[in-house]
Amino acid sequence: MAIETQNARKYRLTVSCPDKVGIVAAVTQFFASHNGWISEAHQFADTENCQFFMRYEVLADSLPFSLDELKAKFAPLGDEFDMQWQITDSAQRKRIVLMVSKEAHALSDLLYRWRSGEMNIDIPCVISNHDVLRSYVEWHGIPFVHVPVDMSNKEPHFQAVKEQIAAAEADAIVLAKYMQIIPEELCELYPSRIINIHHSFLPSFIGARPYHQAAERGVKQIGATCHYVTSELDAGPIIEQDVHRVTHHNTTADMVRLGKDVEKAVLSRGLRYHIEDRVLVRGNKTVVFA
Amino acid sequence: MAIETQNARKYRLTVSCPDKVGIVAAVTQFFASHNGWISEAHQFADTENCQFFMRYEVLADSLPFSLDELKAKFAPLGDEFDMQWQITDSAQRKRIVLMVSKEAHALSDLLYRWRSGEMNIDIPCVISNHDVLRSYVEWHGIPFVHVPVDMSNKEPHFQAVKEQIAAAEADAIVLAKYMQIIPEELCELYPSRIINIHHSFLPSFIGARPYHQAAERGVKQIGATCHYVTSELDAGPIIEQDVHRVTHHNTTADMVRLGKDVEKAVLSRGLRYHIEDRVLVRGNKTVVFA
Amino acid sequence: MAIETQNARKYRLTVSCPDKVGIVAAVTQFFASHNGWISEAHQFADTENCQFFMRYEVLADSLPFSLDELKAKFAPLGDEFDMQWQITDSAQRKRIVLMVSKEAHALSDLLYRWRSGEMNIDIPCVISNHDVLRSYVEWHGIPFVHVPVDMSNKEPHFQAVKEQIAAAEADAIVLAKYMQIIPEELCELYPSRIINIHHSFLPSFIGARPYHQAAERGVKQIGATCHYVTSELDAGPIIEQDVHRVTHHNTTADMVRLGKDVEKAVLSRGLRYHIEDRVLVRGNKTVVFA
Amino acid sequence: MAIETQNARKYRLTVSCPDKVGIVAAVTQFFASHNGWISEAHQFADTENCQFFMRYEVLADSLPFSLDELKAKFAPLGDEFDMQWQITDSAQRKRIVLMVSKEAHALSDLLYRWRSGEMNIDIPCVISNHDVLRSYVEWHGIPFVHVPVDMSNKEPHFQAVKEQIAAAEADAIVLAKYMQIIPEELCELYPSRIINIHHSFLPSFIGARPYHQAAERGVKQIGATCHYVTSELDAGPIIEQDVHRVTHHNTTADMVRLGKDVEKAVLSRGLRYHIEDRVLVRGNKTVVFA
Repeated sequence: MAIETQNARKYRLTVSCPDKVGIVAAVTQFFASHNGWISEAHQFADTENCQFFMRYEVLADSLPFSLDELKAKFAPLGDEFDMQWQITDSAQRKRIVLMVSKEAHALSDLLYRWRSGEMNIDIPCVISNHDVLRSYVEWHGIPFVHVPVDMSNKEPHFQAVKEQIAAAEADAIVLAKYMQIIPEELCELYPSRIINIHHSFLPSFIGARPYHQAAERGVKQIGATCHYVTSELDAGPIIEQDVHRVTHHNTTADMVRLGKDVEKAVLSRGLRYHIEDRVLVRGNKTVVFA
Repeated sequence: MAIETQNARKYRLTVSCPDKVGIVAAVTQFFASHNGWISEAHQFADTENCQFFMRYEVLADSLPFSLDELKAKFAPLGDEFDMQWQITDSAQRKRIVLMVSKEAHALSDLLYRWRSGEMNIDIPCVISNHDVLRSYVEWHGIPFVHVPVDMSNKEPHFQAVKEQIAAAEADAIVLAKYMQIIPEELCELYPSRIINIHHSFLPSFIGARPYHQAAERGVKQIGATCHYVTSELDAGPIIEQDVHRVTHHNTTADMVRLGKDVEKAVLSRGLRYHIEDRVLVRGNKTVVFA
Repeated sequence: MAIETQNARKYRLTVSCPDKVGIVAAVTQFFASHNGWISEAHQFADTENCQFFMRYEVLADSLPFSLDELKAKFAPLGDEFDMQWQITDSAQRKRIVLMVSKEAHALSDLLYRWRSGEMNIDIPCVISNHDVLRSYVEWHGIPFVHVPVDMSNKEPHFQAVKEQIAAAEADAIVLAKYMQIIPEELCELYPSRIINIHHSFLPSFIGARPYHQAAERGVKQIGATCHYVTSELDAGPIIEQDVHRVTHHNTTADMVRLGKDVEKAVLSRGLRYHIEDRVLVRGNKTVVFA
Repeated sequence: MAIETQNARKYRLTVSCPDKVGIVAAVTQFFASHNGWISEAHQFADTENCQFFMRYEVLADSLPFSLDELKAKFAPLGDEFDMQWQITDSAQRKRIVLMVSKEAHALSDLLYRWRSGEMNIDIPCVISNHDVLRSYVEWHGIPFVHVPVDMSNKEPHFQAVKEQIAAAEADAIVLAKYMQIIPEELCELYPSRIINIHHSFLPSFIGARPYHQAAERGVKQIGATCHYVTSELDAGPIIEQDVHRVTHHNTTADMVRLGKDVEKAVLSRGLRYHIEDRVLVRGNKTVVFA
C-alpha cells in the first residue's frame, strides 16, 4: 500500500524546549492516541545547550481535529514541557511580501517558482523603492507597490512600507535584492520573518560591495548567504549558504554575474525551508530540518 | 546544563518495519519509561512503499540495562510492530577487515583515520592478493595477510580469504581497491557487510577501466561510488557518491589521480556511516541517517 | 593604465589543426604585426591525438581591419597550418532560436538572462509544440511560434520547424526542454549548433524518465548535461555537466524539482560558452575554453 | 601520431610583465625558431592593471639547449619586455621542507602522495616543534628534525628552524599544521615560498580557533584556505580554497574533523600548483594556471 502524502494536507508541529526524557514519547503518544499518521519527523538535541528541537508533519485527514482544535488539544503538552511550539496547516499558504530594488534576478527566479506551483505561497504584493520592475510583476497578476525613498530622510519610506506590509497581512517578507538597510523597528516587528540574501559568504565581506571586496582579497570561491534580518547588519541567523568557484580570469563584473546565481539558489532554498516551517531559530543560529 | 554526549557510550537502535500509527510512540514510550536519554533520533517514512525506518541513539548510562537486557526488553515491541531491528553498543568497536591489492590511496586514508582515532574501528587484519603493502600495514601494528591469487583458478584464493575473514571475526569487509570480483558465495555470506568503492559515478561506466570510459565519453565531472557488494557486479545498494570537475586539460592519467581523491572521500564517509549503524538497506537502495 | 576590455568589441579567433611547431608564433606574429591587442588567449594541445586548439580574443579597434578584411588576411595562415578556423565579431550577436514544450524553467531562466543583458544574444523566436508558454514569451516582445505535432506523423511538424528556423536565420537552436527527438536530417543541418539539456548525468540514465531511473537506482546525486545534439540520442559532445545531492528523503518528484535547477544551470553555462565561441568540438568531445 | 608528453621532461617558463602588443609573438617566435615543442600554454591579461602573465611548457628534448643555455638565450627577451621571468626544469624536483606540530592529517596525506609518486618532490626533512610524528616520518626514510619551542622565548626555535631550512636547501616550506606564527624575518627570506593552510574560508575567521568561531556564527559551510605566508597574519595571497557543507547536527568537534578533509584537499592542490610553477603572485593575489 502506498500512502499518497506528497500533496496531502498536513499539520506541521515545530517545537523548541529544554531537553529532558519523554518529550518525543509524549508528543508521539498524543498523535497516536488520536490515530494521527506521521508523514515526516525530525528531531535534534542540542546537547551543548540542553535544548531540544522537533518538527513533525501529520496527515491532517488522519486526525479528527481542525487546526484550532488540534492546537487546543496540544496546548497542555506544550505547557508541561515548557515548549515554544506552533502548529500550521500546509493548506494555508503563507503570504510573502517581496521587496525589490532594480535588480530582477532573485525576483524573476521566485516568480517562476511561484507561477509554476513549485513554491507554495501567496504573494500579496511586491514593494519597491523603484518603479523599474512594475511591468514584469504585473504580468504575473501581482500588485506592484512603488514606495519611493528620499535618501535624506528614509523615515516616510519605511513608514509606508510598514503600512503596506501590514495591509498585505504578510506572514513574512523577502528582501529579494532590496538594497536598503531595514530600520530596527521593522526588524523587531517581524522577528525571524524577514529573509534577506547577502551577496557574500558571511561573515566574510560584511557591508557594501562584497564582490569588490572579494575580488580585492583574491578569494577562489564567492558565496551568498540567506539569513533572517536582525537589527545588527548582516549578522542575523544564517539559513542557507553556498559558493561558486572563481579564477583569476573572472573580473569583478563576472563575480557579480556568477554571484547572482548563488544568490538565487540560496534564497529560493532558504525561503522554501521557511514556508515549510523547517527553520527553527536558536539564539543567533538556525536548526534547518531540510 | 550541557550534556556530554559526543563521546558518551550509546545504544543504537535501528528499525525497519511496515509503517503504521504508533511506532515512534511505542518506541519512545519504551525508552522514556526506563528514563532513557535520547541523544540523536532519525526517522523516515518511505510512503511509496509504506515502510518505516528509524535510528535512535540512547545514552547507555541513562538506562538500567546491559545490551543483552535491553535487547530482551525490546524484543516484544519488535514483534508487535513486525520490525527488523538491531541494537548495538557504541563501545563495541566493529571489526573491519580491509582488503587491498597494490594501490595504497584508500588504505592509507583509512589507516590514518584509524590511528588518529577518527574512525572508531578495530582492524584485525589487512588481506591482499599482493605483498606490496605489507610494510606499511605492519608499521601500524596490524597483521598483513598475503593470499596470492592464481588467475586461472581463483577458488583457492577465495576459500582462503573466507577463512581469514572468519578467523578475524569480521563485522564487515572493506574492499579498499581490492580489484577482484567477489564470488557470489562470499557476497551472500556477508549481506550489506561488504563495502566497495567503484571508481565511477554509478551507474555510469560499470565494469573495467571506468576512467578510460569517462575520458572517451568526454564527461565534465568524474565520480566515485561507495556501495554494498551484491552478487550483481557494481549494482549493489549505493551508500555514498561524489564527483570532481574535469576539463579537456585532464588526461586519463589525471582523471585516475583526481578520481582517487573522490574514491577516498566516499569510502571513508560510507564506512563511517556503516560503523555507526547509519545505513539501512531497503531493497536495492539505502536510507542513510547521516 | 587600465584597458577597458570587458565590454569592448572583439574579434574571436578559434582554431583547430594538427599540432606542430610554430602555430602560436605565426598567429601571434600575425596579430602583432598589425598591432592587434590580445585581450584573452587560450591554447590546448591534445597530445594523445596530436591536435591543437586555440581561441584568441583581439580588441577589434586595435586592428585596422573589418571582419571580412581580417578573414581575408588570415586565410593564408589557415591554409599553411591546415587549420579549421573561424573569426567572429563580438558585436554581431548570435541569433538563437529557443524550442520549448510546456515546462518553463529553462525558458524562464534564459529569458531573464537575455532581458537583463547578461546573455548577449538575439532571440528571433521561440518555437513550441504547445501553446502554453505564448503569453510569457510575448510579454518579452519575442515572437512565439506554435507548431503542433501530430504524434502519429511527426514529419510535417519537423518540416515546419525547419522552415521556421531557416526563416529566423538562426545561428543556433536551444532545446530548452523541447522533449521531442530531433530527426537526423535536422541534426545534420546544424552540426554543433543544436544545444540540448538532458536531465541526467550522462551517460547515466539515457532516454526517457531519467529521474525515475535515478530514484530506482538509489543514486546520491542527480545531474544534468548540456550537450550538442547528434543523430545518436543523448550521445552528442558534452559541453557542461553538474550535479545536486539527494537523500532518501527526496521523492522522485523532489528529484524532478531539484533537477530543474541543475538543468537551468548547465544550460545557461553551456549556451554562454557557445555564443562566446568557447566550445571547440573534437570528435565526440569538446574543448571548452571557459 | 601521439606525442608522449605526460611524463616527458619540460622547461617551464613563467612570465609577468606590463601588457603590450607582441609579447606572445616574441616568446613563441623565440621557441619556434629553435624548434621548441610547446606542450602546454596559458596566458592571462589582467586588464585592470595592464599586467600580463604567461606560463609555457616546452618539451626539453625539442630544444638544443641546457637549462642554463636556455636562460641565457631568453634573457634579452626578458629585458626587452621588462619581464619578471623564470625558467625551471621539470626534471629538477623541488626540495620541500614540511613543518608540522602534532596533527598528522596533512602530513599523512602529503607523504602518501609523495611515496606513491603522485607528488613529484624531494622532502629533505620534516621539522617539528614536537616529537610526536617522528616514527611515522622516519618509516618513510625521511629525516625528522625535532626543534622544541620555548613559548616564553621563541627566538632560538626560529633561529634553529631557519638554519635547518637553509641546510636542507629548501625551495619551499609547507606548514602542514605547524601552528606557530612565522616571524617576519623568515617570511621575508622566503617570499611566495612558504605555503600554509588556514582552517577557515579566509577572510572569515582569521586567527585562532576558526572552527569554534564558525560554530558560533552558525555558518552552513566550513572551509579551508591554502595561501602564501606573509608577515601579515592569515592575509597572504590565496592559492586555493574549498568548503564542506555542515548542518546543525555537526558539533564543533565534527567541524574540526570535516575541516581536516578540506584542509588536506586545498593544501595538496595548492602545493601541486606551486611545485609545477603554476602560481604567479600579483600584489596580494594569485594567478593560478591550473
